[in-house]
Amino acid sequence: MDESFEQRLSAAGESVEQALGALLSPEPRPGERCRPARLLEAMRHAALGGGKRLRPFLVIETAGLFGVTPAAAMRAACAVELVHCYSLVHDDLPAMDDDDLRRGRPTVHKAFDEASAILAGDSLLTYAFEVAADPATHPDPSVRASLVLMLAQASGLGGMAGGQALDLEAERRATPLSIEEVIEMQAMKTGALLAHAVEAGALLGGASPAQTAALSRFGRAIGAAFQIADDLLDHRSDATTLGKRTGKDAARNKATLVSLLGFSAAERWRDALIGDAVAALNEAVPGPAAATLTAAAHFVAGRRS
Amino acid sequence: MDESFEQRLSAAGESVEQALGALLSPEPRPGERCRPARLLEAMRHAALGGGKRLRPFLVIETAGLFGVTPAAAMRAACAVELVHCYSLVHDDLPAMDDDDLRRGRPTVHKAFDEASAILAGDSLLTYAFEVAADPATHPDPSVRASLVLMLAQASGLGGMAGGQALDLEAERRATPLSIEEVIEMQAMKTGALLAHAVEAGALLGGASPAQTAALSRFGRAIGAAFQIADDLLDHRSDATTLGKRTGKDAARNKATLVSLLGFSAAERWRDALIGDAVAALNEAVPGPAAATLTAAAHFVAGRRS
Repeated sequence: MDESFEQRLSAAGESVEQALGALLSPEPRPGERCRPARLLEAMRHAALGGGKRLRPFLVIETAGLFGVTPAAAMRAACAVELVHCYSLVHDDLPAMDDDDLRRGRPTVHKAFDEASAILAGDSLLTYAFEVAADPATHPDPSVRASLVLMLAQASGLGGMAGGQALDLEAERRATPLSIEEVIEMQAMKTGALLAHAVEAGALLGGASPAQTAALSRFGRAIGAAFQIADDLLDHRSDATTLGKRTGKDAARNKATLVSLLGFSAAERWRDALIGDAVAALNEAVPGPAAATLTAAAHFVAGRRS
Repeated sequence: MDESFEQRLSAAGESVEQALGALLSPEPRPGERCRPARLLEAMRHAALGGGKRLRPFLVIETAGLFGVTPAAAMRAACAVELVHCYSLVHDDLPAMDDDDLRRGRPTVHKAFDEASAILAGDSLLTYAFEVAADPATHPDPSVRASLVLMLAQASGLGGMAGGQALDLEAERRATPLSIEEVIEMQAMKTGALLAHAVEAGALLGGASPAQTAALSRFGRAIGAAFQIADDLLDHRSDATTLGKRTGKDAARNKATLVSLLGFSAAERWRDALIGDAVAALNEAVPGPAAATLTAAAHFVAGRRS
């Protein structure tokens, strides 16, 4: 692994943690009456103290290709991460994936209670749009409105939430999902928000339509590779190294590309996706400027946790 | 009750129903990969076929004070209603208010299942912001970004979701809420979104700062009156006329202004709020133009269901 990539990822993660901590401070912001203490605590439990912050990193690095400073990209980066954190809280609920452990800590409904977890997720999701739409995020209101629109499309019925619904539906079906259905489901459940992170960076940077299209392909390809890497990990890890319950897909007899294709074919598919991603990236931004995002693509494919 | 008011409310309700039906049609919109059938059905169950559509009506009528047509205000009106519908779905969940009946029909988690209800709520909330941010909602991106920001502030941690959290917390406390705490909680839980409906109409209409401030006072006052009317209703209705479980506040020994002040003092408070509302409205828009919103204030105070 490229050391400067690791350093950049870690430095961005610290900045994101700090920015999220400030956004989730106890003081009400203009337009808010008050911030109820227990609800805010549950939101902070969900959003702070963990995670690689890969999605905000992608926003920051993609915007950086076009000369946007990390500070200027930070609020859009936090908006994506708030959506990601909400999705983890709701996916962990007893009625959904029923997980007790997340990043080595109790999930929100375990540390607090189920009602608090539902409301904390709702409030993180709502806050993502508040953060994105706020004038502090970008001086141009058309950029802010586009950010909100893209984030909502990536997260909702036709994106992440829809993908989670398809995933839950699959558990109820008599026949497992086909390869095509798994690809579509995962593109919505995981890929859409990762692709949004890249597209948000392109938007902030004022990328041309051709660059945006190529960066969007990059985002979708690393999203798909990320999910295969996650499935490979689920098949071989134990809970100690991963900090969450593992082997659960196999336990539920859930179709993944690993279960459908086998281990080595899934690895080859993942590598082909990374190849596509890097090609799309070079098309958008030729030369050494994209070295960090190239490293990010390989990081996504090889991640250990 | 003014007959023309009843007609306008009913006509607006039909238009809103139609617009929501079109927004929740099976065809994916640009930016969405697909609309999973069962999730969409759960969203339609939650959003279609019921309700007075009071919040969208307030958007449409307030915008209409400034010459904005109902059609031009319709998408902003639908965005508020989508947030309202999401909140009902999540509030009805077993971990929250645990209600089986809503508008005389099974709640979403009863008609579908709990996971579908959580995801349907999440997706309705997300879709509200997608609808608000879309260029079809208003040609000026700064209006769209403001709409999103105001809607998020009214709905989230410092608004509706925060109010629901305070309400749930109150059930756990040894001592009941004080009058001041009940007022604050209800202003967040119910008042913030009703006030947003009025403020959104003022924004679409290009109201002056002074008009906007007065209309905002109107919105907050009718929001507070609405909640007292709801509490009064809860104390005297039965489930047959209301189509949802009643007497539940009393059963939970929950503090409301009715339980704290008694029936007739609560009625007087409600009437004083309606007086304040009408005064604020006349300050914003003198003369007969505001007759429908004046009637709306009285309707809110006297509602039977």
